[in-house]
Amino acid sequence: MTNHREIACRYLAMWNEPDPHRRRVLVASDWATGGRYADPLMSAEGHEAISVMIDGARAQFPGHGFELRGEPDGHGCHVRFSWTLAPVSGAAVAGGTDIARLDDAGHFVEVTGFLDGSIGHG
Amino acid sequence: MTNHREIACRYLAMWNEPDPHRRRVLVASDWATGGRYADPLMSAEGHEAISVMIDGARAQFPGHGFELRGEPDGHGCHVRFSWTLAPVSGAAVAGGTDIARLDDAGHFVEVTGFLDGSIGHG
Repeated sequence: MTNHREIACRYLAMWNEPDPHRRRVLVASDWATGGRYADPLMSAEGHEAISVMIDGARAQFPGHGFELRGEPDGHGCHVRFSWTLAPVSGAAVAGGTDIARLDDAGHFVEVTGFLDGSIGHG
Repeated sequence: MTNHREIACRYLAMWNEPDPHRRRVLVASDWATGGRYADPLMSAEGHEAISVMIDGARAQFPGHGFELRGEPDGHGCHVRFSWTLAPVSGAAVAGGTDIARLDDAGHFVEVTGFLDGSIGHG
């Protein structure tokens, strides 16, 4: 589990997937069954709740996408990566740093997000 | 659990406690029984292993102490804070960011640390 960048990109690609059905497939394949997500604004546990949460978050920012910021790092089963949320051609409206814990099969068991206040409205 | 700064300061005070016996008391009172720590350099699970780990880390940096850097934040049971490690009057030799998860009683259940490469030798 040394390819922290690949893990971070895979994670953001799931959030960025525009097709809701394909997004659900990605959630199911990327997350452990009882996976948990929490940031200052939302939280969810399990595939269905995580999918609904991402649907809702995306609906609030139509035309926006997540982009990796800086270089992910990590150790053992832990990965840290930072991101920005921005419209297709525009300045970032938010940024944050997420810490993910993965299981031995590479599924997300827990992702904890924090907002980085210096970026966008955060 | 809104006082993220107090939690971070309490955590760093445990690392900075010079008396090994008092430090063990702090580990036992601050951590959940099965508490887990992991960063890129070391890891431990349970009070005894965490105490031994801190003993070893401190022995590598005699005369150094941890200081809070920036403002801690968090949500729910999660706290994020950054720190520097520096000698009493000297430049930082390392810096990092830790993410802590606490139980309802305020004990550390899991602390995951990352090194922030721009500080010191990191």
